[in-house]
Amino acid sequence: MPHITLDSAEPGIRGLFRFRPETAGPLNALAEVLLRGDSTLSRGERELIAAYVSSLNRCTFCYSSHAAFAAAQLTEGMDLVEQVRDDLDAAPVSEKTRALLRIAGAVQRGGREVGAADVAAAREAGATDVEIHDTVLIAAAFCMYNRYVDGLATLAPDDPAAYAEHAKFIVEHGYAAPRP
Amino acid sequence: MPHITLDSAEPGIRGLFRFRPETAGPLNALAEVLLRGDSTLSRGERELIAAYVSSLNRCTFCYSSHAAFAAAQLTEGMDLVEQVRDDLDAAPVSEKTRALLRIAGAVQRGGREVGAADVAAAREAGATDVEIHDTVLIAAAFCMYNRYVDGLATLAPDDPAAYAEHAKFIVEHGYAAPRP
Repeated sequence: MPHITLDSAEPGIRGLFRFRPETAGPLNALAEVLLRGDSTLSRGERELIAAYVSSLNRCTFCYSSHAAFAAAQLTEGMDLVEQVRDDLDAAPVSEKTRALLRIAGAVQRGGREVGAADVAAAREAGATDVEIHDTVLIAAAFCMYNRYVDGLATLAPDDPAAYAEHAKFIVEHGYAAPRP
Repeated sequence: MPHITLDSAEPGIRGLFRFRPETAGPLNALAEVLLRGDSTLSRGERELIAAYVSSLNRCTFCYSSHAAFAAAQLTEGMDLVEQVRDDLDAAPVSEKTRALLRIAGAVQRGGREVGAADVAAAREAGATDVEIHDTVLIAAAFCMYNRYVDGLATLAPDDPAAYAEHAKFIVEHGYAAPRP
């Protein structure tokens, strides 16, 4: 049961957006620019970073949501999302993606955990400054969204179909569109 | 030295805002509504939550900034900010503020760390659902801002006067105004 009385039965962050539209606006605008705005990282890659950080934070709602959004936008689908979650070192991703996910994992532990060697490895694998910047900010942002969702004890559906259904909406309309 | 090449010598998050205006917009809009928008929590109380979480995350730039912004808007000034930082249990704040700061501290450790007892204590001390919501989101947001600033190894001025000077700007113009 959520820690506060929400005004809808919507799960996870969606119930919080309904409860407090004043903060929903900038939170959705941030997700839209980070995960779907112009970038040399694909939308699937960026959702993969979001899902990976959410798994490290053990946030069921955010992990299930962004895993579904990543799977819908990666040719390798959910298998790849789960391989990254379970064993990043062995997952079949490019060395650039792996280096960026390692930076994201460091950010999840704390800002001071990102070392110059992590950044050098990403650059060596071809990552640009903007890609490194965006990876750090996506990881940091999910340390916020995850804490927001779990800090208020919102509900997370058990059924994977609920997240897959919502993925269709996000892939088509994005984060800033009014939700049905 | 920052991990990426910024296009200005501005410290902390300000250099990152200059580097990536696309994300600066929603990040500043979020700070504006959370820390300065309509609320039954004073601006000083909300900046105190931001400073407290930033101190727990050991983010020098964000702590020094929001400590200055809190001090400028609390009648008790910097003494109170430092007492809260150093010993929340003994600090001379209301029981409601103390309970909200305890929730913020739990959020800093992780979303799942906020217990029903923490929330019940805040409610018992007079906190509303919106105040509890906003406290959780402020704390979660500073887990993002802190990781963003330190994850890219931005610089933090040593001189407290630099933060006090910037506090004048924020108190007068807010977060969404163009910076000089």
